[in-house]
Order: sequence, then C-alpha cells, then structure tokens
Amino acid sequence: MQVAVIGIGLIGGSFAKDLKQLYPEANIIGIDKSEAHLDEALKLNIIDKKGNYEALADSDVVFVSIPVDSLLEELPKILDAVGEETVVMDAGSTKDLICQSVMDHPKRRNFMACHPIAGTEHSGPSAAINGLYEGKTNIICEVEKTAFKLQEKGLEIFQKMKMRIRYMNPVAHDKHIAYVSHLSHISSFMLGKTVIEKEKNERDIFDMAGSGFESTVRLAKSSPEMWTPIFEQNRDNVVETLEEYIQNLESFKQLLVSRDFGNVHQEMSNTNRIKQILKGIPLTKK
Amino acid sequence: MQVAVIGIGLIGGSFAKDLKQLYPEANIIGIDKSEAHLDEALKLNIIDKKGNYEALADSDVVFVSIPVDSLLEELPKILDAVGEETVVMDAGSTKDLICQSVMDHPKRRNFMACHPIAGTEHSGPSAAINGLYEGKTNIICEVEKTAFKLQEKGLEIFQKMKMRIRYMNPVAHDKHIAYVSHLSHISSFMLGKTVIEKEKNERDIFDMAGSGFESTVRLAKSSPEMWTPIFEQNRDNVVETLEEYIQNLESFKQLLVSRDFGNVHQEMSNTNRIKQILKGIPLTKK
Repeated sequence: MQVAVIGIGLIGGSFAKDLKQLYPEANIIGIDKSEAHLDEALKLNIIDKKGNYEALADSDVVFVSIPVDSLLEELPKILDAVGEETVVMDAGSTKDLICQSVMDHPKRRNFMACHPIAGTEHSGPSAAINGLYEGKTNIICEVEKTAFKLQEKGLEIFQKMKMRIRYMNPVAHDKHIAYVSHLSHISSFMLGKTVIEKEKNERDIFDMAGSGFESTVRLAKSSPEMWTPIFEQNRDNVVETLEEYIQNLESFKQLLVSRDFGNVHQEMSNTNRIKQILKGIPLTKK
Repeated sequence: MQVAVIGIGLIGGSFAKDLKQLYPEANIIGIDKSEAHLDEALKLNIIDKKGNYEALADSDVVFVSIPVDSLLEELPKILDAVGEETVVMDAGSTKDLICQSVMDHPKRRNFMACHPIAGTEHSGPSAAINGLYEGKTNIICEVEKTAFKLQEKGLEIFQKMKMRIRYMNPVAHDKHIAYVSHLSHISSFMLGKTVIEKEKNERDIFDMAGSGFESTVRLAKSSPEMWTPIFEQNRDNVVETLEEYIQNLESFKQLLVSRDFGNVHQEMSNTNRIKQILKGIPLTKK
C-alpha cells in the first residue's frame, strides 16, 4: 500500500505513525511545503521518503492535514493528480467550504470529507504520537458522494485506528463544531490574554496559577496559523457562539453586581450537568 | 502530635492523607458537619476518629478546609476553642475578609492564613488523594501576625509536603487570584452553559467534543457550594476581571465581524506567550 501524507505535522504525523503500525508494509510518502518538517519526519521515521504531487497518481490513500485555507486551494489540485483508485481524505476542522471547493470536481468521488476530532495544543512532526485517534470521533460528511469502494478503503483505516465514525452534513458539522471546539479555543485565548495583560509580572502568574488555570488556558497554546483560517471559514457560526457566550458572561456578571448569589449558585449548579455529559470523552494522551 | 481537620473533603482529606504519611504517629481527628462525610473518611482511613471543637484545646495543629462563608463564621469560634500552642491554618480561596474576621481576636497569633493553591474539580472525602500539595504554591498572608513558634510548626508541615511558600498581603492575594483562578472558573462555567443550552441533544455534544473542550470546561464540574461564597467574598475583583474578559471577547468578535483576520492571527500569536509562562505549573494528578 502506498500512502501519501500531505502536511506532516501533529495530525498527519500521528496518522502516519499509526498507519505504519497497522500496515507495516505500507510505503509512506511525506509531502510538505516545509523542507525542515520533511527532514524531521524522515529522521523520526514517521515517513519513508519525501515526495510531491507526482506521487499521488500511484497512491492508494492520500491524507491531507494542512491548514484549512491551504486545503481550499490544494484539494482541487490534489484531486487532479490522483489515480482512479486513490481515496483522498482530509482532516480539516471546517467542512462546508471544503466540500464546496470540490463539489463539481470530476474526481469528487475520490474524496472523503473527514474531521477526525483529535489533537493536542502542540504542533509539528515532533508532536506526532501513536494512538492519537484511538477512541476519538471522526465526522464524515457527504459520504454518499464518495465512491463506495473508496469509502470502504478509508473506513477500514479509521476503524483499525479504533475511531468512532459519525456521518453528518457539512453545514450541521460546522454549526455544532463551532460550539464544542471553536468557541473553547477563543474562550481560552481571551482568558490567556486577560491574565497576561493584567499580570505584567509573569512570575506572579506562575506562582499563583494552579492546575485549574492551566487546563482552562491550555488551548491558548494552539497554532494561530491553523486557527485563523478555521475562524475565517466558520466565521458566521463562530460569531454566533461568541455572542451567546458573551451574553452568558454578562448575565453572570450582573448577578454578581446585584449580589444575587442565590442565582449565582443556581447557574453553576445547572451547569454541573456537564459532568455526566463529559463522562465518555476520552482524554488526549500527552 | 494531635491534628484536627475541620472539613474533611478533597482539600482536608488530602491534607490528612499526606500528614499520616509524613507523621505516622499523628492522631488525626476529623470534624465535619456531615456525619456521612465523617463515616466515609473513617472507612477510608483518612482520619483516626471523629471529634468536635472540644478536641481543639489539645490539638497541635488545626487545618480548616470549609467553604469560605462558613470559615468567616467558624474561624473566631475555632480560635476561641484552641490551646495556647495550637496553630490554626485555613485553606480558603479568599483571604481579605477571612483575615479581617479574626483581626482583633485575642488568639490572632494562633492563626496562620493560608491558601494552598491545589485542588481538582472533584469533592468529598473519596476525592482525597496523596500528593495533592506536592510542588504546589501555598500563599501565606499576614505571616507577621502569627506567633513565631507557630509559624515554624505550620511551615514545617507544608515544607515536608514539598509546597512552595510565598508571602503576600490579603488584598493583593484576592486581586491576583481573581485573575488566575476565579475568572477561569466563570469562563469555564459559562462555556459549559453556552454549549448545553445550544446542544439540546447531549449525544451530539458527547460525540463531537474533543479533549480540548473537555479541558476548557473541566472547572464547570466544580462545587457551587464552594464557589458561590468565594465569588461573594471576592466580588469586586471578580467583576473587574469579568469586565476585562468580556471586553477582550467583544474585541475579538469585532475582528471576526469586520473580517480583520490579520489581527485575529496577531491576537492569538501574542497570547501564545502563555506557553512559556505556564511551563512551570505542575499539573494536578488525577
């Protein structure tokens, strides 16, 4: 089996590492605009060799894990280059514009739109880990537009990686993911910003911040290169979630201002329900 | 050594567990308004026996880990009951009102105002763990008001637990902690609320939420009984942090609305500095 991984950072690198374990005979070709990343991935044995789009025609599987703005530009070119039996799968955190970008492509049936919901706040080939995808959810969009045999080929890999597969339309995906992922990132970034602005003396933050702050602000370590185009492509949904979040914070603030601590308690008590809801979410291995 | 632990939940129970390991000969008396918690703590071998304030006169150390509203009421009574050589240490997340509550108490010198910055989102005796305090910071306020010999007695315990000790005045403590702890909790609770409100179908949240959401919303599992009085006592500082946080979220939203993605990137890039700042924060053991 020949597999091309386009974009060999945390997501693509972890995919390649698992693949190598599941299919020891697989020949993994790394494609990346960064020569340094490719060299690092080679050195770490994440890929077997470097390549370019010419390698796509002979590849059985192409996994595309690049920022979603590049994905919009590259995906049509990637489909141009693949063979009849190649399945192309992406890992983009947005799905609507990406599906639209190849809607009328003659090789649309070679593409399976995926969002494996997995990651850490780290990036680059050295952040790649085995087992990143195990137990995580993979949202597949417009699966009916992918050739049946190619669906099978792609799904087999994700199933061997022990992912849970869910099907959804791209518009619904983008709306839901704004709440459970994109908003978390903004809430975390702005929390980090608020504290850094106030606490000019970083030593004080370090000394007083406990693990609660650390976990709440973890996502503020995420890559701006990855997240800016996500927010751009999912702007309307993200703005809507932000408005609701700001409104909830404003209401909570008003309860404090008016010393209505009965309702402060009630608000927190209602939200404690998140305990039950979260019970099944597998934590990312560090 | 006789030690009384008043409030035998996560914080008091973890203190008792470490103490037992460091001072195997210590006799640990549990005091709690909940008979069920005391029975559980006995069964878990966290305490040696149940007791009441009559036991305080003969105790060498009294550790008070109860919600901060109860602390305001109980601390003067606790000091009334202790012996000449007893050191009383609290674990309250606010310090200004607590220090004021015993400011003129004839036994003020028996009290050392502490905030060990440690915890998890869980509560109750069964949540108690060994090593909760290791590597964490303990902020001690108005240390000069504690009798020198009793400072020594208290500090020895925290040092054996490998805590980092920092000294601060109560007003500064409450101001800083609002940023690095109290705001995180509100940001997390309101994130949980926003998502729950939107996603009526909890199965969808469960399936799509990744570990990023899980860590950002972790603090929304915290106890409203503990946190309501913290927000009440530190209301002015908390409202100030909330206003700044809401302002930052509002500005970020405006960047999205006006499609100013250059500055969206810049904002995240500036906040990435949190990586370096956080490097030294020890994660809570789960």
